[in-house]
Amino acid sequence: MSAALIEAKASWTRGEVPVGAVVVSPSGMIVSRAGNRTREYSDPTAHAEMLALRAACAANGSERLPDHSLFVTLEPCPMCAAAIAAARIKVLYYAASDPKSGGVAHGARIFSHAQCHHRPDVFEGLMEQDASDLLKRFFAERRA
Amino acid sequence: MSAALIEAKASWTRGEVPVGAVVVSPSGMIVSRAGNRTREYSDPTAHAEMLALRAACAANGSERLPDHSLFVTLEPCPMCAAAIAAARIKVLYYAASDPKSGGVAHGARIFSHAQCHHRPDVFEGLMEQDASDLLKRFFAERRA
Repeated sequence: MSAALIEAKASWTRGEVPVGAVVVSPSGMIVSRAGNRTREYSDPTAHAEMLALRAACAANGSERLPDHSLFVTLEPCPMCAAAIAAARIKVLYYAASDPKSGGVAHGARIFSHAQCHHRPDVFEGLMEQDASDLLKRFFAERRA
Repeated sequence: MSAALIEAKASWTRGEVPVGAVVVSPSGMIVSRAGNRTREYSDPTAHAEMLALRAACAANGSERLPDHSLFVTLEPCPMCAAAIAAARIKVLYYAASDPKSGGVAHGARIFSHAQCHHRPDVFEGLMEQDASDLLKRFFAERRA
């Protein structure tokens, strides 16, 4: 998760909402890392998780990442949660909760429907304080 | 929708599940068209809708497509539905219903939660028979 936080901080330096994600292989190696780039790419799908998943799939030559884990600094939105299911991620770790836009423990609760064909194990709260402090500082600065 | 069906048929010729999508500008011009390419790209996010949205956003130089419409041959999955909301698509037309994997009228029902920050108008069933026949023929051939 500290690698994901580094990506989140790098997103901030690019003027993006500071969210970072890394994909970890079954042997424990980081296979991809990404930060949010929606503004830079003019792409509403360029969330940290989506970019990390796509890079890991490209490296793996497969649209699935069995036995891989994804670490992300913020609760995934419904789009990202559904992509995590589609990629067959085994374990999802996220730091801060997102009652406003989250789609795992809030709102659409992507993994809780019969239409979700794969459910990762989910662990919330790892380095939560660091991730949520970063987001709070970012939004406080934008409002200032 | 007939342009989306042409994209769906082209997906089949590439060995992909036949789904196609087009984005239409406020003046009625097609600004992007795409078919499913998850296998070709080894990318679980490369659904027709995602590729069409990303191409339209890139052409528009913006992560939002206000007053644009999206036509897709199958009910969007939760990932695509959430991306449609994020891109601020005004009207979503889809042909065939998808009780198994859909995320608009089924399962996660992406547009029905407070965490969904934009709700397009949704019209289902335009050229439904053509789109669902195409999918049925594709899956029958795969099983044969």
